[in-house]
Amino acid sequence: MPFENYNIIESTLREGEQFSTAAFTPVQKQKIAEMLDSFGVEMIEMTSPCASPQSAADIRAVVGMGLRARILTHIRCNHDDARRALDTGVQGIDIVIGTSPHLIRHSHGKNINQIIDLAADVLSFIRQQAPDVILRFSTEDSFRSREADLLRVYLAIADLGLVQRLGVADTVGVALPGQVSALVHQLVRLTGLDVEFHGHNDSGCAIANACAALEAGATHIDTTILGIGERNGITPLGGLIARLYTLNRQYVAKYNLKLLPQLDLLIADYCDIPIPFSNYITGSSAFIHKAGIHAKAVLADPETYEILQPEDFGLTREVAVGHRLTGWNAIRSRALALGLSLDEATLKSITQTIKQRADHQPLSLPEVDALLMEAAFQL
Amino acid sequence: MPFENYNIIESTLREGEQFSTAAFTPVQKQKIAEMLDSFGVEMIEMTSPCASPQSAADIRAVVGMGLRARILTHIRCNHDDARRALDTGVQGIDIVIGTSPHLIRHSHGKNINQIIDLAADVLSFIRQQAPDVILRFSTEDSFRSREADLLRVYLAIADLGLVQRLGVADTVGVALPGQVSALVHQLVRLTGLDVEFHGHNDSGCAIANACAALEAGATHIDTTILGIGERNGITPLGGLIARLYTLNRQYVAKYNLKLLPQLDLLIADYCDIPIPFSNYITGSSAFIHKAGIHAKAVLADPETYEILQPEDFGLTREVAVGHRLTGWNAIRSRALALGLSLDEATLKSITQTIKQRADHQPLSLPEVDALLMEAAFQL
Repeated sequence: MPFENYNIIESTLREGEQFSTAAFTPVQKQKIAEMLDSFGVEMIEMTSPCASPQSAADIRAVVGMGLRARILTHIRCNHDDARRALDTGVQGIDIVIGTSPHLIRHSHGKNINQIIDLAADVLSFIRQQAPDVILRFSTEDSFRSREADLLRVYLAIADLGLVQRLGVADTVGVALPGQVSALVHQLVRLTGLDVEFHGHNDSGCAIANACAALEAGATHIDTTILGIGERNGITPLGGLIARLYTLNRQYVAKYNLKLLPQLDLLIADYCDIPIPFSNYITGSSAFIHKAGIHAKAVLADPETYEILQPEDFGLTREVAVGHRLTGWNAIRSRALALGLSLDEATLKSITQTIKQRADHQPLSLPEVDALLMEAAFQL
Repeated sequence: MPFENYNIIESTLREGEQFSTAAFTPVQKQKIAEMLDSFGVEMIEMTSPCASPQSAADIRAVVGMGLRARILTHIRCNHDDARRALDTGVQGIDIVIGTSPHLIRHSHGKNINQIIDLAADVLSFIRQQAPDVILRFSTEDSFRSREADLLRVYLAIADLGLVQRLGVADTVGVALPGQVSALVHQLVRLTGLDVEFHGHNDSGCAIANACAALEAGATHIDTTILGIGERNGITPLGGLIARLYTLNRQYVAKYNLKLLPQLDLLIADYCDIPIPFSNYITGSSAFIHKAGIHAKAVLADPETYEILQPEDFGLTREVAVGHRLTGWNAIRSRALALGLSLDEATLKSITQTIKQRADHQPLSLPEVDALLMEAAFQL
């Protein structure tokens, strides 16, 4: 069944390091890994040991923490990278090579036959050295690759019997959900292997694409905290959680959801960026209800305008009242919260006063309260 | 053909006003309308004249500007709202009524037959008063409504022959692209009327859903600048542009794309919010390339890792060089930009030095330049 047995490959420590302002210290990396493990992600992907001396040391340190999450690293398809990855003691190795005409021309210059031969060679080497390591093979820029090329590569690699998992990557953020679904479904059907989806968000479909991948039978989704990564990033952890929660809260019951706000705050702090106002679940306005008709219904039953319950994430909702779009039901609710019992006509009159004053300047909550108390004392 | 004749209903002045920190002054509203008109959106939707006295005055003022974009207002389904909307002189009226069990219970208490009768009554009244006004009828919370209820309502309204356009609204941000596609396609096929999609982004599918709606034959998409709206908002104007541009740049050729950064900055300023780092096109990192393999390929051909060309939006790309993920091709490119010709061995050695130093602290561009110049002078 889709959505029942999926895994999150949390790549804040790999893709996330490719975000413009990310430069995690060893201590920060261990803190991130520890919190992700407490949240419950199944796998944590780390920057290649070939990137820099500290990158290799950081993998060893996180592997040494003995977390429940399995630690992976992400390397280019060559022997030297493979050797250095094995040296770190990681539990999984993610290999990637470009297959689109763009990447064949400007990244490595190899044709499809050469890609297959090289991958077979590198994967065999790793498997010989480490019979138990979890091996993944992924194409890069999968959705600008020729479909025939993709199938030749994936089917040849699957036939080797060396990898547990095939990866598809929307490297430039161009894919539509239907395309993701078709490719993932084809790989699941033809190979029977686990399938991973990695999606950039340049055109705003990274979450929808991840969801389409799972629906089509993908077993692993790549995320980063707040979605940080190259350019504007990839599928955000919180966004994927929001999407799956709204389909069925049971799909995310295995995670410690109340840690999500702390994870988002941690990365915002480490990268010196504000959490976007529009962020899933933890954005400043995610649970603020403003227009009068929204406020009225939410006060009666939050589910009327909420598909996510803030309390599941340790958060609270807010009904904004001191603005021109306010309604008298919201004002009545505020009066009751203050212990004031005012009749309908009075409440409607106060509501009109608030609207008129808010046309010039929104009212703070103490200003709204003052109007209500003034009316109550005059009665 | 889908995507060829679509219209943007820009709702920053309606849905956007429902964002927590939005409280636009009359002057700000006119500035927003003017810039949206210059950008080229086909329609501008404004807050109901019933919201507050100034809201009604603002509609009249914007209507009086004589813009190319048509000015709409958005009202509840009742005679009083309709009368006040007509009084403003708007060119279009968007009527909405909830059809989901949640909204029937907590918003208006009417059953489906009563909804149909009321809508018929209000629409007939408006059409009598204003034969030329553009009329839209929308359900609210369409994707939590019973399909049979939706079809009964839409088919009854279409049969009246009074409205140009039917609206479907993902009010709580729960829909998946496949669901949007199915409902829109059904309405297009059964009624032949224009179809509008309005989608919230609580679970991250607002852009994918808008795209699915257009593919299925929708003619109108609601957007707001930066996506501001109730809770975490709706389909952002820039995100929709990014999505359609990546499908075919011709789909957005009718808009003045170079105004997009100014529109995003304007709303960020008016609402006192930073533009999210991850924002489509205008986020701080949207065109920053960091990892060595990305930098190498982008320097050879930007399209390798870019599906949006920054220059089309009056923006520029950046290749970050002073970090641990850097590569020697990026360093060579920087040396050439400084007019320095260094051999490969020297460049690779400098790259290793940068990686080691960046393991402790990323290098600024002047620090990278100093290393390159030092090497050049020693030669």
